[in-house]
Amino acid sequence: MITKKHLIIALSCLIMACPALAQELKSPDGLLRMNFRITDNGVPGYQLFYKGKEVIKPSKMGLELKGNTTKVEFGDEAAIKTEQKDIKNSLYDGFSLKNTATSSFDEIWQPVWGERKNIRNQYNELSVNLIQKGTQREMVIRFRLFNDGLGFRYEFPQQKNLIYFVIKEERTQFAMTGDHTAFWIPGDYDTQEYDFTTSKLSEIRSLMKKAITPNASQTPFSPTGVQTSLMMKTKEGLYINIHEAALINYACMHLNLNDKDFVFESWLTPDANGDKGNMQAPAQTPWRTIMVSDDARNILASALTLNLNEPCKIEDTSWIKPMKYVGVWWEMITGKSEWSYTYDLPSVDLNKTDYTKVKPHGRHGATTENVKRYIDFAAANGFGGVLVEGWNTGWEDWFGNSKDYVFDFVTPYPDFDLLGIQNYAKSKGVEMIMHHETSGSIRNYERHIDTAYKFMKRHGYNAVKSGYVGDMIPRGEYHYSQWINNHYQYAIEKAAEYKIMVNAHEAVRPTGMSRTYPNLIGNESARGTEYQAFGGSKPNHVTILPFTRLIGGPMDYTPGIFEMDISKINPNNKSWVNSTLANQLALYVTIYSPLQMAADLIENYERFPDAFQFIKDVALDWDDSKYLEAEPGQYITVARKAKGSNNWFVGSVAGEKGHTSNIVFDFLDAGKKYVATIYADTKDADYKKNPQAYEIRKVVVNNKSKLVQKSVPAGGFAISVIEVTNKSQLKGLKTL
Amino acid sequence: MITKKHLIIALSCLIMACPALAQELKSPDGLLRMNFRITDNGVPGYQLFYKGKEVIKPSKMGLELKGNTTKVEFGDEAAIKTEQKDIKNSLYDGFSLKNTATSSFDEIWQPVWGERKNIRNQYNELSVNLIQKGTQREMVIRFRLFNDGLGFRYEFPQQKNLIYFVIKEERTQFAMTGDHTAFWIPGDYDTQEYDFTTSKLSEIRSLMKKAITPNASQTPFSPTGVQTSLMMKTKEGLYINIHEAALINYACMHLNLNDKDFVFESWLTPDANGDKGNMQAPAQTPWRTIMVSDDARNILASALTLNLNEPCKIEDTSWIKPMKYVGVWWEMITGKSEWSYTYDLPSVDLNKTDYTKVKPHGRHGATTENVKRYIDFAAANGFGGVLVEGWNTGWEDWFGNSKDYVFDFVTPYPDFDLLGIQNYAKSKGVEMIMHHETSGSIRNYERHIDTAYKFMKRHGYNAVKSGYVGDMIPRGEYHYSQWINNHYQYAIEKAAEYKIMVNAHEAVRPTGMSRTYPNLIGNESARGTEYQAFGGSKPNHVTILPFTRLIGGPMDYTPGIFEMDISKINPNNKSWVNSTLANQLALYVTIYSPLQMAADLIENYERFPDAFQFIKDVALDWDDSKYLEAEPGQYITVARKAKGSNNWFVGSVAGEKGHTSNIVFDFLDAGKKYVATIYADTKDADYKKNPQAYEIRKVVVNNKSKLVQKSVPAGGFAISVIEVTNKSQLKGLKTL
Repeated sequence: MITKKHLIIALSCLIMACPALAQELKSPDGLLRMNFRITDNGVPGYQLFYKGKEVIKPSKMGLELKGNTTKVEFGDEAAIKTEQKDIKNSLYDGFSLKNTATSSFDEIWQPVWGERKNIRNQYNELSVNLIQKGTQREMVIRFRLFNDGLGFRYEFPQQKNLIYFVIKEERTQFAMTGDHTAFWIPGDYDTQEYDFTTSKLSEIRSLMKKAITPNASQTPFSPTGVQTSLMMKTKEGLYINIHEAALINYACMHLNLNDKDFVFESWLTPDANGDKGNMQAPAQTPWRTIMVSDDARNILASALTLNLNEPCKIEDTSWIKPMKYVGVWWEMITGKSEWSYTYDLPSVDLNKTDYTKVKPHGRHGATTENVKRYIDFAAANGFGGVLVEGWNTGWEDWFGNSKDYVFDFVTPYPDFDLLGIQNYAKSKGVEMIMHHETSGSIRNYERHIDTAYKFMKRHGYNAVKSGYVGDMIPRGEYHYSQWINNHYQYAIEKAAEYKIMVNAHEAVRPTGMSRTYPNLIGNESARGTEYQAFGGSKPNHVTILPFTRLIGGPMDYTPGIFEMDISKINPNNKSWVNSTLANQLALYVTIYSPLQMAADLIENYERFPDAFQFIKDVALDWDDSKYLEAEPGQYITVARKAKGSNNWFVGSVAGEKGHTSNIVFDFLDAGKKYVATIYADTKDADYKKNPQAYEIRKVVVNNKSKLVQKSVPAGGFAISVIEVTNKSQLKGLKTL
Repeated sequence: MITKKHLIIALSCLIMACPALAQELKSPDGLLRMNFRITDNGVPGYQLFYKGKEVIKPSKMGLELKGNTTKVEFGDEAAIKTEQKDIKNSLYDGFSLKNTATSSFDEIWQPVWGERKNIRNQYNELSVNLIQKGTQREMVIRFRLFNDGLGFRYEFPQQKNLIYFVIKEERTQFAMTGDHTAFWIPGDYDTQEYDFTTSKLSEIRSLMKKAITPNASQTPFSPTGVQTSLMMKTKEGLYINIHEAALINYACMHLNLNDKDFVFESWLTPDANGDKGNMQAPAQTPWRTIMVSDDARNILASALTLNLNEPCKIEDTSWIKPMKYVGVWWEMITGKSEWSYTYDLPSVDLNKTDYTKVKPHGRHGATTENVKRYIDFAAANGFGGVLVEGWNTGWEDWFGNSKDYVFDFVTPYPDFDLLGIQNYAKSKGVEMIMHHETSGSIRNYERHIDTAYKFMKRHGYNAVKSGYVGDMIPRGEYHYSQWINNHYQYAIEKAAEYKIMVNAHEAVRPTGMSRTYPNLIGNESARGTEYQAFGGSKPNHVTILPFTRLIGGPMDYTPGIFEMDISKINPNNKSWVNSTLANQLALYVTIYSPLQMAADLIENYERFPDAFQFIKDVALDWDDSKYLEAEPGQYITVARKAKGSNNWFVGSVAGEKGHTSNIVFDFLDAGKKYVATIYADTKDADYKKNPQAYEIRKVVVNNKSKLVQKSVPAGGFAISVIEVTNKSQLKGLKTL
């Protein structure tokens, strides 16, 4: 993937025990500046400036360890002994500087799929090698300063006095300079599916209770605990984003706020023992990232998170392909049909239950007939895939029962003709997408994963949507602990062996790992469209997601809902989709993902074929992306150039206030003409009362064209910009 | 396996809400009698009598449930909700009788391997169907009364109001009639490897602290908590044994003593959440067993535990074969050599560590050369197998580090020539026995288990010794919880698919499951011979094990130590084996196992070829077993008839006081003559000062012969009794 490494200069300087001295580092463009210091007590710390102004106040760094229990080996007379060793539990003080090194890096690399063809990875690096008095333990802190932000991590080199250790807590501070506005969701060990709250930092505590809405599995931990990626804006108009990159073999980080002085501190997800990490040196933490800009668009355009991940580890990536899909899903989410097959069974024992002996309830969604209807629709409209949930046995009691052997991942219900569907899909040129709901029972999933992946390949499935709904088994574990995170990683790496793409739902939020394992084609890990059928999400939700959840990687948001009144699908469900139809179209551009679903029912698309045309047309993979307008919680407008073509697609979404966009098409090639088809809210569109009020107009544009386009609250617009290759295409069209 | 079912009579009677009435049941021989009652509060209970005298006082039965958290499904407007349901947590009161049924059963079945060819399973059964007021929940208690004891279990039939539930604690009482003498080890969630303490029940509390000796992983839980199988003796000379049978998908039971009134209550092993079981009806608990006799020999001879397990589930059992083996093991246990290969590595990363680049420490036991020496020895002496520990990479840091990816089970050290050894063993007609130490990291084991089992079959290994040393991963789990027990069962059932025999060490204590899965060829699950190299075990240890640990199934005790002074093997190890050499020979008969190791070093066997002859000769599988003398903690003498032959083998072990045996050979066929070779302690034998003082004499015996044979403290004797087929065999021998 790497094309050019411009230069790597390593400057190493030996500075013994010189705590007063501060190490400084500047970003390549000089606008960001950081320093590293050690206090008189040997506490490491850093500070960050943007254009000369302080962004992060002096912040402490380090980790607290758990008291080690060292057990002595067999074989001597004393036999099996347990010894309590009095190891110093601090990796946060007593340090002095052993040496430092600085270097620069600049390369252009190409992702397998992504928002742009070429990604520049340019930074200046400072690594400080610390040594702890008394213990002689060494720790390296490595800083990488990019033009758009800072990344740093802790490294534990191979050494004698620090080999195996248990983390009680990571103590990394992010000291804010004031009472910023934050776009936050409650910190939680088990769910990320909260609506965002926009508030001052000082208001988090009082708003927390309201922010913690019910979920299938949830474990909030602090009245000022929030999740990353955390988006903030200062009074002075500076945008700050805190997240992590390359979360591997480590617990997911939350942030806990000291709301007296606005200092965040890292708060890791514990295991069943309450421990936060079992480490073996040599090892390192994930990168802690702080993006900074005075232009919100730079946060969205940043590739910092990807750049802090390792290059692709999959040699042959030819089988990894972005895909648009439809599926038997929204009808279950809305309650029109069900995942389950029967009401006859008080409980299911997969070893014994004979589904051919029970009475079907007649509301099963994944029937052969229904699936074929979706295959036909996919084939007719150019969709690559069809996802079917509820195809396999076990859905009668899968949830909330802490059931260990909950699914076997290979046995269809009697009314799902696996082979027939396989052949039918093949004949239509459509790929079936597998669904592996684990119900959080991960030992069960791992026991079946090889068989399940083999089954997929045998039956023509190349992608799987996996799910982790509900409390984890092993019981006592949380969704985002080190040990459970290792499971998600195991599933991805094993899938790569089988050339299977993974779209994991309810798994830990992504941190740019798709650079290294691009078969991780999608994640949910946030409040997706399904919540629009569970009571609705806030109207500005989609103007915040790209600033938060999407910082770590693409989201399978499942947009494209054309019918906002869910009671029209299921009279018992009074939920309402807080969005206009034009907003739903825009999401295919604003929420980047190489996997995009057209989530609504076929019949709803058939009612609006002209609007549906945009979903059919929009590309999935991009040579370039230009963030034209952005303000978190308010609006986002992005233009993307389709891979290997001169066509562009523009999307714009607005929050609760609506937004009037002023777009210049200067991203287009000079001298070329394009036909722009604009799908927009009408003036009287209203996400509550008149959401399907859209208008479609065609105009000719060139790189001088300007567009003023109004979006109503929770509205938006989408534009396809197709290069003119034949003059007849211009017929009857005005130029903008 | 089943040959004859004599009769099954089911008598069903409907008795509605009749709490005052007691249901009675008698054993087939009428000597045991029990009754079942429900108190006015609806508390179920039972009572047991032997020869008219009370053995178990009225004892309560039932379970306490955890408050259920019922979570509502997706799909309605209200969306994902968490609802606390106020389910009554008692399954121990409020019951009335719905109906009862009694039946009788009698059959003879043949085990795949065992102490006898035919096992009689004869009992009278009472099942009481209870219904709980208010909840309408039903629970069945099923009693089976054998001539040698009682078994009962709780059953939860399919029903509407009790489907999924979590057990807070099982509340089964075993109310003793007095301050009995008990042979006990501390209750512990993580180890069974304690020395037995013999004391009054009233003394347990004060002796507990001393009884809890250090172990690689240990979690004692109560000052009066003890393990099953628990052996007791009353003042009146009655022997009582409490254990469980068919421990499947349930937590292992301990007993907690109320030492004011001598009532034991069940105490299950919790999971990481502190819960004690996740149940799904229909379901049942394991059987709780109470063996009773006024003759200790009947406890040892009882097949009650096996009889309460399900018949064999493996169709083709031809590949399951008892085996005598030697191995590269005792030299590591004593500290003469090591499992590991190098001292160079601070820690091992199996993905990165290159063992070909490190300096071997020269003390590695599992070298090709050393293994071939054991293969030669096995072939020369008729041993079927050779076990080699420490053959695979990872032993440098395997223990005490909570290391997840600790072994891969397929990669040999550079000095272990896997293929060369495979071919060499095959050429010598010897089978290699695999070793899978998991270090308690069970997810890692399950991730590799298919690959590991396939590797075994590819390389000619048909049996595996598995190990679970140290604290469990997932962290917070214990060795004997329901969820971890399910792992052991998974490993056994999967092994059966591959036609692999399992000898599991540190796994949960057996409960007769080898009837159902006879590929579970052995277990450790108690303090084995290795402790004789870790400071020693009590001299009477082997006179208690058959009354306790062996009630559940065979033990891989690894006897046959000829050199008691461990410092002669490893000068740094001052441990002493508390046993005479003759006692060690006797163990091959007194500690029943289809898998028997000759555990000592080859050079020690070569010093005593005449004694070693008994180990070579002794059979492994039996047509019959006669317990001739038995008193727990004092002595055990047993005679066993070798499978498919007229030869017998006799073993006798004595405790701290020594013992003089009076044996009548009336188990021999009338009219036949046999040559008996007696391996016995000399008069001046002394397990501390003169343990290798044995004498061997040959005599002719018939079914009238009597033998008076003295065993010194921690001594014993072994006799091979070979049918005379040629008169020349009698030459020069006296008749006893």
